Amino acid sequence: MINDFQEIAGQVRYDSQTTICAISTPSGSGGIAVIRVSGPDAITVCNMVFQPENAGKSIVHQPPYTLNHGNIVKGTEILDEVLVAVFRQPHSFTGEDVVEISCHGSVYIQQEILKLLLKNGCRLAQPGEFTQRAFLNGKMDLSQAEAVADVIASSSAASHRLAINQMRGGFSRELQNLRSQLLNFVSLIELELDFGEEDVAFADRNKLVQSAREIQEVIAQLAHSFSVGNAIKNGIPVVIVGETNAGKSTLLNHLLNEDKAIVSEVHGTTRDTIEDVIDVRGIMFRFIDTAGIRSTADEIETLGIKRTIQKIEQASVIIWMIDTTHFNKEIEYIADQIVPRTKNKKLIIVFNKIDKISPEEQLILEEEFLPHVPAERIYLSAKYKKNTENLEKVLLKAAGLPDLQADDVVVTNLRHYEALTKALESIRRVEEGLKTHLSGDFIAQDIRECMHYLGEITGEISTDEILGNIFRNFCIGK
Amino acid sequence: MINDFQEIAGQVRYDSQTTICAISTPSGSGGIAVIRVSGPDAITVCNMVFQPENAGKSIVHQPPYTLNHGNIVKGTEILDEVLVAVFRQPHSFTGEDVVEISCHGSVYIQQEILKLLLKNGCRLAQPGEFTQRAFLNGKMDLSQAEAVADVIASSSAASHRLAINQMRGGFSRELQNLRSQLLNFVSLIELELDFGEEDVAFADRNKLVQSAREIQEVIAQLAHSFSVGNAIKNGIPVVIVGETNAGKSTLLNHLLNEDKAIVSEVHGTTRDTIEDVIDVRGIMFRFIDTAGIRSTADEIETLGIKRTIQKIEQASVIIWMIDTTHFNKEIEYIADQIVPRTKNKKLIIVFNKIDKISPEEQLILEEEFLPHVPAERIYLSAKYKKNTENLEKVLLKAAGLPDLQADDVVVTNLRHYEALTKALESIRRVEEGLKTHLSGDFIAQDIRECMHYLGEITGEISTDEILGNIFRNFCIGK
Repeated sequence: MINDFQEIAGQVRYDSQTTICAISTPSGSGGIAVIRVSGPDAITVCNMVFQPENAGKSIVHQPPYTLNHGNIVKGTEILDEVLVAVFRQPHSFTGEDVVEISCHGSVYIQQEILKLLLKNGCRLAQPGEFTQRAFLNGKMDLSQAEAVADVIASSSAASHRLAINQMRGGFSRELQNLRSQLLNFVSLIELELDFGEEDVAFADRNKLVQSAREIQEVIAQLAHSFSVGNAIKNGIPVVIVGETNAGKSTLLNHLLNEDKAIVSEVHGTTRDTIEDVIDVRGIMFRFIDTAGIRSTADEIETLGIKRTIQKIEQASVIIWMIDTTHFNKEIEYIADQIVPRTKNKKLIIVFNKIDKISPEEQLILEEEFLPHVPAERIYLSAKYKKNTENLEKVLLKAAGLPDLQADDVVVTNLRHYEALTKALESIRRVEEGLKTHLSGDFIAQDIRECMHYLGEITGEISTDEILGNIFRNFCIGK
Repeated sequence: MINDFQEIAGQVRYDSQTTICAISTPSGSGGIAVIRVSGPDAITVCNMVFQPENAGKSIVHQPPYTLNHGNIVKGTEILDEVLVAVFRQPHSFTGEDVVEISCHGSVYIQQEILKLLLKNGCRLAQPGEFTQRAFLNGKMDLSQAEAVADVIASSSAASHRLAINQMRGGFSRELQNLRSQLLNFVSLIELELDFGEEDVAFADRNKLVQSAREIQEVIAQLAHSFSVGNAIKNGIPVVIVGETNAGKSTLLNHLLNEDKAIVSEVHGTTRDTIEDVIDVRGIMFRFIDTAGIRSTADEIETLGIKRTIQKIEQASVIIWMIDTTHFNKEIEYIADQIVPRTKNKKLIIVFNKIDKISPEEQLILEEEFLPHVPAERIYLSAKYKKNTENLEKVLLKAAGLPDLQADDVVVTNLRHYEALTKALESIRRVEEGLKTHLSGDFIAQDIRECMHYLGEITGEISTDEILGNIFRNFCIGK
C-alpha cells in the first residue's frame, strides 16, 4: 500500500498550504503505530475524525503538548481507541500545526486511519516531507535535516554519534562561524581595498592573508575529516585474502558471532552487496567477500588473483590469512601479487592454525617471513579461538580512526565534502589574489563564492533539485 | 536482540512491583519509534535518563497527559532528541505510572535507549505484559485484554469490527448481564427453595424454569455465534478443485488482483500454510491450495482425488471449476468423487471459458449438467474477465454470514466458546433440576458452576496457567 501511495505522492509538488499525513513508525504490525499529520489543517482535520473520551474537550481547544484519549471514528463506526498528541506552530517538529495519532499497531488500522485522513483533506506525505517542512520553516538548516536521515540510518555507535552531533547543529555552528568570518572579511576587502587601494598598509594586507589562511585551514580540516567521517558512516572496507583452506570463513564467523545482533540489524541502510558488516567496539567494518584463491596454478591466474586484486582496490584494510601448516610455493606467488598493491592501505598478515606448529616454527615465521613488508602480524588459531581477541585491536588500529570526542565535527556527507572542496578552492584563490595584488573586486568575488558553497551546505543556497535529491532518500513519515 | 531479551523475559515471573519497558512500535527502522515504560518507577527511571530541553521542568513535576521535549542522555552523551509522554496511575493504559518515549526510529537508538532503561532498573516486558497489567489492575476484563491482541492481528474489516467491539466491552456487558441474572437466580433458589420447600407455589417454579431457559438461550446464542465469529476471524476456508487446465490459477490471480494490498499484508497472523488469503468486501476467504487433478486416470486415483478429498474436508466452500470446452469422461468420475462430499458445505460450480462456447451450448449446460446437485452455478471466462464480478457475490452468499451490526456480540475466541459450552451444560442441568424437583442445593451448585465458567471468560476466575497461555501469544510491547 505504501508503494501505491508513494507513486501518487511522487507526482505531488511541495506546497506548504496542504496538510500532509503518513505512518511514521516502522512498517508492519506491532503494539502501537503513530500517524503524523502536519500542516495548517492538521488539527481541524483530526478533529473531524477524533472523538474525545467521556465527551472531553475537542482537540481544537486543547493546549499544545497534550495527549488526548478517545476514538477515531468513521461515520458512526469506531475504528480504534487512540491517543492524540497536539502541537501548535511554530512549536513542533515541522514548525506547523502537528497532530500525532497513536493507534493500535495493526496494518489494517494504520491503513484505515490513513485513508480516513486522506478522505478528509490530507495528502500523503512525500518521503522526508516532514523534515523538509522543518527545514523550510527554519526549524533546522539543511545539514541538520540531512542528519535526521543519518540518525535513522546509523547502526553503529560511532556513526550514530556523528549524526546526532550534526543533527543538533554541531556542523552548522562551525559553518556559521566561517560565514561570519567571511562576511567580516568581505566587508574589509570591499572597504579597504576598493576605497583606498593606495593607502592600504602592507601590514594590513599581511593580516588579510593571515585571515584567509585561517579560514582556509578550518575548511581544509573539515574537508579532510570526510575520509574519517565516510569510513565511520559507511564502514571501513576490509578484504580477507588467502587460499581457500586458510581459515577465512572460520575467522569471519568468529568475528560475526561477537556481534551477531548488530550485524543482523543493518537492513535498510544504503549499502549494496556487502556480505558482512561487523561492529567492532562501535566502529563498522565492511568485509568484502573474496572468492578465495584456488590452489591450481592455472586458476590462480584466471580467477583467484584477478578477482582478489579488484577487491583489494576497494578495501582500506587487507587481511592476508596464511595457513601456517601449509606453506608452499604459491605463498611467494601470492605475496608478489598482493604486497605491491597494499600501498596506502593497511596490511594485516594473519598466521592461522598456530596450535598446529611448534613455538620454534612460530619464531622462524616471525623472523623470516617477508621481514621487510610493512604489516601488522598476528598469530592465532581461528578454530580454537586462540589469540583471536587481539585481531579486534589490530583491526581498530588498522582503521586508523582518531579518538573522536562527542562534539567533534566530522563531515560524513559527500555533498558537504564536495561543497567544502569548492569552498576551499575559492578561499585559496583569495589568498593567491591578496598575494598577487589582485583587484579587490575579484577577491571579494572569490570570498562570496566561498560563502556560496558553504551556504549550499546549510541550505541558504538551494534549488528544488538539490532538495529533491536530498529528501527523496528519506523514509516516508519523517 | 529482541529474541535474546525474550529468552530472559521468559524466565521472569509477573511482579507488579517491577517497572517494565519494551519497544511498542513495529520492529525495524522507521521515522520514529515508541518505547513504553510502566510500573511504580516509570517516571523516576525515565527522569534519570531524560533531560528536558531549555532546562524545562523535570518530568517528575509535569502533569499527566503531557508531552515533554528533550534529550535521552547516557552519562554526558546525548543518545537522542525525544518526546516523552507522561501518564500517572490509575489514568493510563496499564493503570500504573507510564512513560512513552518517542525517539528516532533507528534500530540502534531503540536498542540503546532500551539498554539504558534496563541498566537503570527496568526489566524487559514479557509479551503482552502491559495488557496483562491493565487486566490485573482492573482497567479491562480478560475478554477485553484478549481482544487487544485480536485488534492488532485483524486484517479484514469484519474481523477488525468484532475485535474492536469486544475490546470496548461489548461482550463483557453481555456477560455482566448474564452474571447479574444468575446472581438473582441463585439467591431466589437459595431463599425460596431452601427455606420453604413446601411453600413454593407451582407458578414460581415455572417462572424459575422460564428464567433458566432465557439465560440458556442467551448463552446458546453466544456459543452459536462462534461459527460465524471463527469464520470472520480466521477466514472462510475455500478449496478450488478441477483439472489442471480448467483455469484455477487464472481465477485465483484475478481474485487476488482485486485486493493485492490486503493479501500481501497478512504477515504475522497465526495462520499456518495458507497460500492465499483474499479479502472480499471485508470478509476473508482462505484459499486452500489443491494440487489439481491430473488427466491420467491412474494418477487421478492416487494423487489428485485423494488429496482433493482431504482438502474438501477442511473447506466450507468448494469451487469446482470446469473447462466447458473440454468435457470428457473424467468429469463424471470427478462428480462422483466430489459431490457426495459437499454435504453441509457450499458447492459453487464455475463453468469457465464460456467465451469459447455458443449460447446454445451454454443453455444445454445450464439445463443438463447435474441438474439435481444443489450448487451455485456461475458461467464465466476467467481469462477475459467475463462475468467474474459475480463470483464475489456468489462467494459472499456461499459464506452465509449474517449482516452484522457494529455492536453485535459475536464470539471469536475458542477459549470463550469452550467456556460458554460448559456454562450452557450447567444451565441446562438447572432447568432439568427444576423440572425434576431436584434439591435447591444442587440447583444452586449448577448455577454457581455456570457463573464460574462465565467468570473464566472475563477473568474473574483465572489461573496463572490461563493467563500465561493468553499473554504468551501477544507481541512484546503491548
